[in-house]
Amino acid sequence: MYFSSDNWAGAHPRIADALTRHSSGFAAAYATSDLDKRVEQKFSAIFERDVTVFFVATGTAANSLSLAAVNRPGGVAFCHREAHMFVDECGAPEMFTHGARLVPVDGAGGKLDPDHLKQEIARFPLDFIHGGRPMAVSVTQATEVGAVYSTDELNTISGICRDHGLPLHMDGARFANAVAHLGQSPAELTWKSGVDIMSFGATKNGCWCAEALVVFDPAKAADLTYIHKRSAHLFSKARFVSAQFETYFEDDLWLHMAGHANALAQQLQSGLAASDRARLAWPVQANEVFAILDRSRADALRQAGAQFHDWIAPHGMPEPPSGDEVLVRFVTSFALTSEDVDQFLDLLRAD
Amino acid sequence: MYFSSDNWAGAHPRIADALTRHSSGFAAAYATSDLDKRVEQKFSAIFERDVTVFFVATGTAANSLSLAAVNRPGGVAFCHREAHMFVDECGAPEMFTHGARLVPVDGAGGKLDPDHLKQEIARFPLDFIHGGRPMAVSVTQATEVGAVYSTDELNTISGICRDHGLPLHMDGARFANAVAHLGQSPAELTWKSGVDIMSFGATKNGCWCAEALVVFDPAKAADLTYIHKRSAHLFSKARFVSAQFETYFEDDLWLHMAGHANALAQQLQSGLAASDRARLAWPVQANEVFAILDRSRADALRQAGAQFHDWIAPHGMPEPPSGDEVLVRFVTSFALTSEDVDQFLDLLRAD
Amino acid sequence: MYFSSDNWAGAHPRIADALTRHSSGFAAAYATSDLDKRVEQKFSAIFERDVTVFFVATGTAANSLSLAAVNRPGGVAFCHREAHMFVDECGAPEMFTHGARLVPVDGAGGKLDPDHLKQEIARFPLDFIHGGRPMAVSVTQATEVGAVYSTDELNTISGICRDHGLPLHMDGARFANAVAHLGQSPAELTWKSGVDIMSFGATKNGCWCAEALVVFDPAKAADLTYIHKRSAHLFSKARFVSAQFETYFEDDLWLHMAGHANALAQQLQSGLAASDRARLAWPVQANEVFAILDRSRADALRQAGAQFHDWIAPHGMPEPPSGDEVLVRFVTSFALTSEDVDQFLDLLRAD
Amino acid sequence: MYFSSDNWAGAHPRIADALTRHSSGFAAAYATSDLDKRVEQKFSAIFERDVTVFFVATGTAANSLSLAAVNRPGGVAFCHREAHMFVDECGAPEMFTHGARLVPVDGAGGKLDPDHLKQEIARFPLDFIHGGRPMAVSVTQATEVGAVYSTDELNTISGICRDHGLPLHMDGARFANAVAHLGQSPAELTWKSGVDIMSFGATKNGCWCAEALVVFDPAKAADLTYIHKRSAHLFSKARFVSAQFETYFEDDLWLHMAGHANALAQQLQSGLAASDRARLAWPVQANEVFAILDRSRADALRQAGAQFHDWIAPHGMPEPPSGDEVLVRFVTSFALTSEDVDQFLDLLRAD
Repeated sequence: MYFSSDNWAGAHPRIADALTRHSSGFAAAYATSDLDKRVEQKFSAIFERDVTVFFVATGTAANSLSLAAVNRPGGVAFCHREAHMFVDECGAPEMFTHGARLVPVDGAGGKLDPDHLKQEIARFPLDFIHGGRPMAVSVTQATEVGAVYSTDELNTISGICRDHGLPLHMDGARFANAVAHLGQSPAELTWKSGVDIMSFGATKNGCWCAEALVVFDPAKAADLTYIHKRSAHLFSKARFVSAQFETYFEDDLWLHMAGHANALAQQLQSGLAASDRARLAWPVQANEVFAILDRSRADALRQAGAQFHDWIAPHGMPEPPSGDEVLVRFVTSFALTSEDVDQFLDLLRAD
Repeated sequence: MYFSSDNWAGAHPRIADALTRHSSGFAAAYATSDLDKRVEQKFSAIFERDVTVFFVATGTAANSLSLAAVNRPGGVAFCHREAHMFVDECGAPEMFTHGARLVPVDGAGGKLDPDHLKQEIARFPLDFIHGGRPMAVSVTQATEVGAVYSTDELNTISGICRDHGLPLHMDGARFANAVAHLGQSPAELTWKSGVDIMSFGATKNGCWCAEALVVFDPAKAADLTYIHKRSAHLFSKARFVSAQFETYFEDDLWLHMAGHANALAQQLQSGLAASDRARLAWPVQANEVFAILDRSRADALRQAGAQFHDWIAPHGMPEPPSGDEVLVRFVTSFALTSEDVDQFLDLLRAD
Repeated sequence: MYFSSDNWAGAHPRIADALTRHSSGFAAAYATSDLDKRVEQKFSAIFERDVTVFFVATGTAANSLSLAAVNRPGGVAFCHREAHMFVDECGAPEMFTHGARLVPVDGAGGKLDPDHLKQEIARFPLDFIHGGRPMAVSVTQATEVGAVYSTDELNTISGICRDHGLPLHMDGARFANAVAHLGQSPAELTWKSGVDIMSFGATKNGCWCAEALVVFDPAKAADLTYIHKRSAHLFSKARFVSAQFETYFEDDLWLHMAGHANALAQQLQSGLAASDRARLAWPVQANEVFAILDRSRADALRQAGAQFHDWIAPHGMPEPPSGDEVLVRFVTSFALTSEDVDQFLDLLRAD
Repeated sequence: MYFSSDNWAGAHPRIADALTRHSSGFAAAYATSDLDKRVEQKFSAIFERDVTVFFVATGTAANSLSLAAVNRPGGVAFCHREAHMFVDECGAPEMFTHGARLVPVDGAGGKLDPDHLKQEIARFPLDFIHGGRPMAVSVTQATEVGAVYSTDELNTISGICRDHGLPLHMDGARFANAVAHLGQSPAELTWKSGVDIMSFGATKNGCWCAEALVVFDPAKAADLTYIHKRSAHLFSKARFVSAQFETYFEDDLWLHMAGHANALAQQLQSGLAASDRARLAWPVQANEVFAILDRSRADALRQAGAQFHDWIAPHGMPEPPSGDEVLVRFVTSFALTSEDVDQFLDLLRAD
């Protein structure tokens, strides 16, 4: 019952097979092999337009290099107060942008509140150089707390970006879960909704290590070639990432895995909703379920073998944990089964 | 006949198997799993002392973060003029050190000439702050041109470092080849010879992506934990690197692969020496063979299916290519066979 | 009636004279002349202990280099939400620290609220590397809104720093005004209250350009020598700054100027308090007076020749401007006279 | 007999007077006052086209920010091996460019040898990203060793820049001396000869602290506004620099001072040439004289009160000092007189 994180899982057997299959033979290094090119074309097909793709080691790298690519001196980027880049990347975005600032924006469900975003952007008027100047907005899809932006919501944000001449970045560490949830195309959820550059994550969804920076604006690609290389993220045997992505996209494996994870989250949500031993923190859309329960019950569940993390109650959460209660997070993935969820729910009921 | 580079190979079948074997199940993320710890202990066993290990995506990252870890404001590092960090890393060392300078040092065979090193260090007297101050020396083992430092040679360099209070870094992208060539222990070739921090590469020697920064001075490890994370090189599923290293060290697989590659290089060297159609550029010690031949012959060999790179004649090379001649490089690896070498030599003779 | 800012003034005649007096003759460059050394000794006398002093071009430089000197990888510094370094330095602290983060802390009067400070530090637990780690706390004395920390208040803050092993920085752009207000010694207000490093400003208080970084912990000085030089803030003719400081400290000129400015601020405060045409925003301690008045009245005063800036109401201000009201700031300095204040107050009454 | 450096002098009396004259009154801060604007217009008049001007604290800042303004990821700049930015700025250019590399180019008299420049640029072919990519060329006018580029020579260099799409920077720390020597207009010696951005120094030529970055390409100015501010080089009382420049340009004071310094250098050159106790190292064009003499004689001259620095013999110098000889440098300035030179020459003869 490993609900700690989707990055506690390993790799889907087909992904492992792909690596084995490609392990023999020779190919040009540094992402210039035929396989590398084929996979870049596959990304273009998936997104229904020509995109440029850079593989990197981590989602943190994808986020940081995205911001570096659109940054300008004195730059300020806006992201959600709970965004991974704001709370979990140890200053990597600041380092790769050589000292840009991240300004936290509030909003329910990990989504940028449009009014608060406008308000924060307004704090940096263009004729007051002392404060710096806006350079990007970043959204996380699906968000850190398992919610999913609709295309309407994305368009509202990208409209604000357009009004201020700001590029829009999407942290898609769990993009597959958003696509699977909404049933809309990757194109609709990104550049057709105004996204200029994205972090495309596959590691959390069944790969070993497959993170890509996808650039919809080819004008940014020239500089990124160098930003990428000098960030030490250009793999020599890049095809070990390409091989993962090739299989990831094959037969929609990525959406099957994400759909499976989402379904397990729904199953878990239903079970929790039906239980009087925990209450759901907010509705589940992707593969993360947040619940509030007594600290003693959480301890007992862990004692019995369930693994999950405590979570800090987000700023402005309507009914936060009180007294002995604790907010916890359950993450599902391709590697869990419906039986795992049932087993956990049984445990909860039995408790 | 792929002699282009050892990073054109894929992964040894046992490495691929290791990934498959570990692909199921769950484990703590961010290099904190049991496997990750086991592998770190294995590194300590290999080096016969406690070491701290950080996995990174590339050798460039290992080199750059090593320098970042020992850097200080105004820092200047000394490396060979042909060192990877000087010519092939697109400014990554400069970026991760926030603008330290690399000073090139000459020397035959890609090895730092001790006198030239002393001379260059002397250009930065400590009471003249305007020029900056020395902060590290870096050696490459095996060197970029296939030579291997003896422990005597390393001790000479580390003695100079000690005289100036400078840490010694080793770029060990091909460390296995050096160990296999010398038959001395990893400990003797590193900290016992005065090395403080090293880039330990396994990617060129049969892994998909397995690069580590090995720290012999634990005092540097605390800062590196953060340098590592904020460089975006802390893999969430770090165990996919650990799994490679576990197998890499098992049954001395790493030394068998390196020994095999070295033997093929010797075989190639003998064949070239016996031929009147090429001349050896310098003696072979590791897995790289450099030869001088006519441009037309090089073209013909490539036409016939042999793959190898042209190489720029190193500064101060005794008998450089002249007229129509060209210097070329052949790299061997676990993925080539004695038959591949014979096939190439036949081609050369037949030509 | 120039109340816009204390940096709208020029230089005190004695400061200008000092520059003229030193303009002939020759002296060693780069802050190594006899005058430079004499002035550094004067700083040590003023602070009653050996200090190391670095001249820089701006207060922004002093703040940024201070943070750079105490920073460590993944570093996070805590300062007031209205601190100059947070809102007015265009990312300079982030740039010179190579991407450290500034975390804003709330508190009345521009002073760090100790509880909020503790709470914010607690968000960076040392075993969670992903969030970064605390590296410094910064206080502004006098604060951006004209309040002055008492030594008790400073000791509370420095106690928190000590508990967390954090150095305490003081932004003393208006330090003279704080000293003049409290009547305590510079030593008592700095290192005796736990300050480790400070930005010592004199530009706002009668100099042309005299900003210094004062280091109480000599262990930091070695690195700062290089940080200073490579930040391009080491003046060749440093004695033009030294000459200003020499005179600044002579006959307590600095405290006379600051005392004069403070007295004018008190005079202005009294006049405003007695008026029903404006209300005081908060009590005045240093040389800044904040008042709330109708926008139309503010316009009329400006029309009549008074110069002052609008100010954004601080977060959590008790009785913020409402409706047509506006918050404005008046800054006094050596260059204004009691007559200037009277003239303004007459204008207000007449209005 | 202070020949140590032109930055050992103080300020011309008229410069000191200007500061005194402007010390009273009030003016808008941060380089937005009428005086600041007037001086920027004066720069435009001097250069016969609209230029944008940024004041900075040091020549190192002007050089570093210039490179930062034209840099791009992976950037490599080319400058002379003896250029100030290469040997005397402690890594400031590298820091402000966030890790660009400076590549030293050889050439007689401190001037870039065009062939060597082309050769070094060619080492960074655009399709090989691993090595980085050229981003700027920098010339020093007058050079570090007192030579002056002719417009023909500048046009040759700027032609190479144009061929490679590279901006040309001029380090004009001693630009006045070059203008005075050549008798050509500032426009002819800069943008009309292909210079895109320059460091315009006045500190060495009679000012206290007056260094400017002059931008001929207005497209670069927008970013520089922020680069400048966040480098902490935007003076609040910028008019104390403006006041110096205003007087500097008045009645051609700058050219009179530079012409005076150049004439003294010629006088010194003649005296040395006529003497058998020293030999001239190379012909004098600006305000620096280099000579070779016996170490014992140099010691004796210093004993007798003459001040001058030893100098390291430049790479490739035709007749370098041998045996007991030493190369020394004499720098003249507005603050020395013909009598000072005579006194020194008498000393030399008497010796």
